[in-house]
Amino acid sequence: MSTVRNIRLTLAYDGTNYCGWQVQTNGPSLQATIERAILKLTGEKAALFSAGRTDSGVHALGQVANFQTTCAIPAENFRQALQAFLPHDIVILESSEATLDFHSTFKAVRKQYRYLIDNSSVPLPFLRGLTWWLRRRLDVAAMHEAAQLLTGTHDFRSFETDWPNKVTSVRTIYEITFSRQPLWRLFTPIRAADVEIPSVESSAATDGPIIAMDIIADGFLYNMVRSIVGTLVNVGREKWTRDDVQRILAAQDRSIAGSTAPACGLYLVRVWYD
Amino acid sequence: MSTVRNIRLTLAYDGTNYCGWQVQTNGPSLQATIERAILKLTGEKAALFSAGRTDSGVHALGQVANFQTTCAIPAENFRQALQAFLPHDIVILESSEATLDFHSTFKAVRKQYRYLIDNSSVPLPFLRGLTWWLRRRLDVAAMHEAAQLLTGTHDFRSFETDWPNKVTSVRTIYEITFSRQPLWRLFTPIRAADVEIPSVESSAATDGPIIAMDIIADGFLYNMVRSIVGTLVNVGREKWTRDDVQRILAAQDRSIAGSTAPACGLYLVRVWYD
Repeated sequence: MSTVRNIRLTLAYDGTNYCGWQVQTNGPSLQATIERAILKLTGEKAALFSAGRTDSGVHALGQVANFQTTCAIPAENFRQALQAFLPHDIVILESSEATLDFHSTFKAVRKQYRYLIDNSSVPLPFLRGLTWWLRRRLDVAAMHEAAQLLTGTHDFRSFETDWPNKVTSVRTIYEITFSRQPLWRLFTPIRAADVEIPSVESSAATDGPIIAMDIIADGFLYNMVRSIVGTLVNVGREKWTRDDVQRILAAQDRSIAGSTAPACGLYLVRVWYD
Repeated sequence: MSTVRNIRLTLAYDGTNYCGWQVQTNGPSLQATIERAILKLTGEKAALFSAGRTDSGVHALGQVANFQTTCAIPAENFRQALQAFLPHDIVILESSEATLDFHSTFKAVRKQYRYLIDNSSVPLPFLRGLTWWLRRRLDVAAMHEAAQLLTGTHDFRSFETDWPNKVTSVRTIYEITFSRQPLWRLFTPIRAADVEIPSVESSAATDGPIIAMDIIADGFLYNMVRSIVGTLVNVGREKWTRDDVQRILAAQDRSIAGSTAPACGLYLVRVWYD
């Protein structure tokens, strides 16, 4: 009798050419593509779960997924073996054995998303199509300040498209930070000397055309990060103030918040489990 | 009578499709492409100088260049005006007025290059073709340690291809640092909390598949960074030791050092002037 195992994967992918994580009828999904690789490798039709069902065009730097299998391959070798059946834009960073009660969706306690805005007058090289290009200079300090209103436990109904969950829109945002960074920060090693830059602590003050919003929460509603970005960009454009953000949050009405920012700038960064 | 001005540009470019900075007969050069844009804008045939004559396929995150013109456009507007005549893979980050004695090549006192190695088992998404992919795990701590032998003032003849300068191969390397970083570090804001990670100070200890070598010197010989990388990679592969690097440096003989690492991983990061 074969033993059932639970394999955990950490994934990075460029979501540009996918209709999102979940199996869809309108194009290739990440889930279907990886499930097909599992089928080819193990001969088993597995159900692949993930920490975040990233939307069409959304990327991942550290998505976590899991599937059950009876295949006897050593857990860490699934990485290489599955990769052989995957296209270039999906990369398995790690594979490991998980206990049978591990579930990447339901056991996630914290997730981090990053949203990248290219705020230069022409799109910068290297990350073209992987950021939201907004040429008009945004007031990032104002965005950072207004974002702090959203931290804590709130009903984020104003930032949820379609309310598909129909259960609760209450979530806890642990942290939202904005930063401006020059292009040359690309994989710059972090050293003690760097944090001595004045006011780098409130990182909004640092200069450069690349705006990164990092958000950590216990969970995210459908389109939550992108509608928060769309709202805060209106603060950066001086169209809205901090008070407007307060009013929008309180209204619990999606129609008055900002538009949904483009998927191409959004990255699922990390997932935490207990 | 028209006044001669000196315009300074800061540039980022993806060097993949260029035969290098300098005008060549075998393909489009960055210099020729930008000089053509200047001609179209100003009607003048300008000579464009740069801090580093990056080689075929080498990139820039902060190249500095300058040219003389009699064109009366406000200095900061050259950025936008020239950009209109440039392809997507060359971006002017900044334009400013420089004094007539400013020369981007000869007045540079310090330059920083970064070399990116993708040390994962399959090439990671997002920076495909923009790193040197080496699947076998490198001992980055050993590379970092051996690299320290190269800091200071030395004759770097062993790391110069063709000795084209025929003057002196003595240069001063102020700093070489290696780091390992996870993919999710992509434009992660730098915060005080990050430097409390144990031994991030000797950044070689941090984990992740992306290896960045940052090198700052008063000047660089032809192929110097790439031959240093090619040499230190042999340390990372445990083929050579720290003592071998010492011996190679002392030999002043290019033929015994490592091979020239691929251009696609090399970035001119920043240039300093007095």
